[in-house]
Amino acid sequence: MDSEITLKQEIAWASHLSLQACLLPAPKGTSCANYARCVNQILLGLNNMKLWLRIPLLKTDDNDSMDVNSIHPVDSWELWNSFRMLCEHHSQLSIALDILSSIPPANSLGRWFGESVRAAIMDTDSFLTNARGYPCLSKRHQNLVAGFFNHSIQIVVSGKPVNGLPKGSTDLAADHNDRNFDAVQRHPLRPYLDYIGYLYQKMDPLPEQERFELGYRDFLQSPLQPLMDNLEAQTYETFEKDAVKYIQYQRAICKALQDRVPEEKASTLTIVLMVVGAGRGPLVRASLQAAEETGRKLKIYAVEKNPNAIVTLHSLVKLEGWEDTVTIISSDMRHWDASEKADILVSELLGSFGDNELSPECLDGAQRFLKDDGISIPSSYTSFVQPVTASKLYNDVKSHKDLVHFETAYVVKLHNVVRLAASQPVFTFTHPNKSSKGSNQRHKKLRFEIPSDTGSAMVHGFAGYFDATLYKDVYLGIEPSTATPNMFSWFAIFFPLRTPVIVHPGSALEVHFWRCCGPTKVWYEWCVASPCPSPIHNSNGRSYWVGL
Amino acid sequence: MDSEITLKQEIAWASHLSLQACLLPAPKGTSCANYARCVNQILLGLNNMKLWLRIPLLKTDDNDSMDVNSIHPVDSWELWNSFRMLCEHHSQLSIALDILSSIPPANSLGRWFGESVRAAIMDTDSFLTNARGYPCLSKRHQNLVAGFFNHSIQIVVSGKPVNGLPKGSTDLAADHNDRNFDAVQRHPLRPYLDYIGYLYQKMDPLPEQERFELGYRDFLQSPLQPLMDNLEAQTYETFEKDAVKYIQYQRAICKALQDRVPEEKASTLTIVLMVVGAGRGPLVRASLQAAEETGRKLKIYAVEKNPNAIVTLHSLVKLEGWEDTVTIISSDMRHWDASEKADILVSELLGSFGDNELSPECLDGAQRFLKDDGISIPSSYTSFVQPVTASKLYNDVKSHKDLVHFETAYVVKLHNVVRLAASQPVFTFTHPNKSSKGSNQRHKKLRFEIPSDTGSAMVHGFAGYFDATLYKDVYLGIEPSTATPNMFSWFAIFFPLRTPVIVHPGSALEVHFWRCCGPTKVWYEWCVASPCPSPIHNSNGRSYWVGL
Repeated sequence: MDSEITLKQEIAWASHLSLQACLLPAPKGTSCANYARCVNQILLGLNNMKLWLRIPLLKTDDNDSMDVNSIHPVDSWELWNSFRMLCEHHSQLSIALDILSSIPPANSLGRWFGESVRAAIMDTDSFLTNARGYPCLSKRHQNLVAGFFNHSIQIVVSGKPVNGLPKGSTDLAADHNDRNFDAVQRHPLRPYLDYIGYLYQKMDPLPEQERFELGYRDFLQSPLQPLMDNLEAQTYETFEKDAVKYIQYQRAICKALQDRVPEEKASTLTIVLMVVGAGRGPLVRASLQAAEETGRKLKIYAVEKNPNAIVTLHSLVKLEGWEDTVTIISSDMRHWDASEKADILVSELLGSFGDNELSPECLDGAQRFLKDDGISIPSSYTSFVQPVTASKLYNDVKSHKDLVHFETAYVVKLHNVVRLAASQPVFTFTHPNKSSKGSNQRHKKLRFEIPSDTGSAMVHGFAGYFDATLYKDVYLGIEPSTATPNMFSWFAIFFPLRTPVIVHPGSALEVHFWRCCGPTKVWYEWCVASPCPSPIHNSNGRSYWVGL
Repeated sequence: MDSEITLKQEIAWASHLSLQACLLPAPKGTSCANYARCVNQILLGLNNMKLWLRIPLLKTDDNDSMDVNSIHPVDSWELWNSFRMLCEHHSQLSIALDILSSIPPANSLGRWFGESVRAAIMDTDSFLTNARGYPCLSKRHQNLVAGFFNHSIQIVVSGKPVNGLPKGSTDLAADHNDRNFDAVQRHPLRPYLDYIGYLYQKMDPLPEQERFELGYRDFLQSPLQPLMDNLEAQTYETFEKDAVKYIQYQRAICKALQDRVPEEKASTLTIVLMVVGAGRGPLVRASLQAAEETGRKLKIYAVEKNPNAIVTLHSLVKLEGWEDTVTIISSDMRHWDASEKADILVSELLGSFGDNELSPECLDGAQRFLKDDGISIPSSYTSFVQPVTASKLYNDVKSHKDLVHFETAYVVKLHNVVRLAASQPVFTFTHPNKSSKGSNQRHKKLRFEIPSDTGSAMVHGFAGYFDATLYKDVYLGIEPSTATPNMFSWFAIFFPLRTPVIVHPGSALEVHFWRCCGPTKVWYEWCVASPCPSPIHNSNGRSYWVGL
């Protein structure tokens, strides 16, 4: 009771001083409930200050913990997980990891990069001494520190300098501009700090695309509704810059033209190609370039439902002198009454989750004016999901304090995220769609095996991707294991869970996804069925849907 | 997809006809997620109609399910539990149990009595034929049916009559007034129905107290705040009728008087007895009766803070001619400046959870005017909790759609409830309180072992009780295993859980309870720490507290 009063007094003082954050001592023993109760009481009365709970980076091997006396295997992630669940995932509660001289197995370390780790406190004991007497780190510690840099986790050096180390290494410090600050230079931990600085300098610079996407990391965006809404010029502008994507389209169109028109008929046969959803024309350009590249003759219809984009499209055709080849149709492809049928239908209607921008419904509508043996580019696409730890995303969703945000899918550049199992295919659509029933409703049951060597894991939701076959062996996609390199048009999609689910090592996570279709909208529902059933999310599309 | 459309059409038709409830077919196989998704969509659009999901009453022994091919042991409670969790514990989704010829082990049957079972459908196959050729039930089936009667579960007889049974047993039907309804009498299932009716007639009638409490079953009440609020006359009236309680008090006072005054000094020594919280005087009467019974001489102070009760108290003293013995003090016992010290302090400040009406704080305040060797009646009391399945209570709490109601304790006559483990002691208070620190803050960690032969169980919250030592071997309490018979002053208390917790057979449930004290209020916090940590409920007493 005395400790509790003291802690509350000290936190009140720190809060009065407007400190950004306070370090809290690590929970002791196996039961942290009373400490958590006390911290939770503090958190609920806190203004802006954050609390960083010290957690030793510790996990004994499963073999070690076979000791019958220890009912609780020592895994400090479990300790943290209990603590934060008792504190109801409070967004002002973060972690300061204490790094010790030995590090847990590599597979279990990844879990921390889905959590809100703010600092890594490296004790001088965790350093080695090199031949010249300077501090350095083991290879495994170096990799860990690189991971911290990559996730913007502050490194704090702590403890007593090891005897015999040179004081204030002037040769290293010479690189810095703080030469005059003798006090700083002479700080006994200066050589450790310099070494950490040196590791930072050694990091590979970020590739250009990653640098461009830096500002989007873990930032939730509502998915586009391109069918209901009209896109803005700026959105077209951004997507048109994705050279890699249009090169893939051009390759696919080339192959389709060559298959459709044998070399000997190239100069006589004219192919009818329709770009459905032409926007401001990038696929029209790719098609014309494919025709030129293959020497095939084309007649193009550019169908677009956004009257504003039509204006730009007209200017483009005039500017480029395409009037003889390209006919602009200002209409929704689902309702256009075409005067002739197409050999090839080209579209770019895919969202981050493949069918989530209603490509299936649009292309089913356009199929009327595709010849029976006609080609659709893309010819098929598949969505994928995988379970992830993503405490930042979970807390951002939670901050809205309503059900709607927990039942919405978000477009997001995933970074502070742990992928807990390989992604698995969910829904596949093929075009043209020859099946007579032709419903675009889908249901998929997925079973993810969580590896047994990583320890327990927290599932905050599911990362979603797509993979598309444009034509034959020309692919396009963002599924991590097969993603098209250097393409930036799509971030992943994120399906949150209202209540995060713990999955224990070696056990399975059973998940269901549904694609439901109503007269005016399409929506997804999702749930966890095992180890512990969740409510079915977004029932009847009550929170999130895409308008037809 | 066809089945889904048909189901939705049939439900829409039933709803149009304003039916009370519809029976839904039992889920098939091991994965019910898609069926649950469909039913959940229907539930969200339903008006008042209920859906009763048929569930076969089935549980194979653990030994049987060792079969490696069956990953899912057949326990239909598990199936129901998954289904209702996917449907988010929807209050319009109930159960119709299909009773088969064989019944699962008795221990696992109890679980159903904490669920919303509305009907039991008994197939004629589950009946036996007696020597006279009439249908009857095995002893185990009879016990089960008695349980259904006891929980107001409708019995439905279904199936084909077994060949050779007498049609419409006129001798049994002679007891009924429906002799003219030949059609009814001749219904081929009439003998089955008559037998069920016969079992109902055979039931023991409810004891008077149970009959009196019938209307309170599973009805949540907010606990009294007798310290902050003044009780109404009707409340006093009700509690004063509890003869058993005052008999126990009188027995305790007798023993205390005899201990305090040896027989030989009975006529010379006058004992100062203070009734703190005298209300309308029942303990004053009990004390005077104890004095008469033991031949001891008493001087009584009746201390009461409710000015309205004081009025009645004055009338009582005048009416009974107690003016020489009884002094009425209109004051809060915590602030009364007593002119002399008491030998015996008698109080009845206990709530359903013992200390929850702030008896410790009141008696600590009154202790100033108790002699150093004085006696407090009660001399100690202990609260108890046990985990329970209580879907009715959970749904009633949930219906308020806010956090506050999930973090409040309720007084309730528990009936449609399954007690999952023996209750365990939580907080104990002893009076007079000699410890120098004297804080009434408490923290208790409890570990409940759920028996391994009952199957998995759902914990919706905790039932709370108290047990008090009035004096030496005179007890009073409502803890089920030691409850004082025929006492009706207290129902149990119920602490809900925001999210129900599943506990698997043979595993442990770790629970924490805190009693927290602030300058103006006292409150409880509670949480589950294992198998899966819950948020800490009622942090800082944000939802529920008792005012000082």
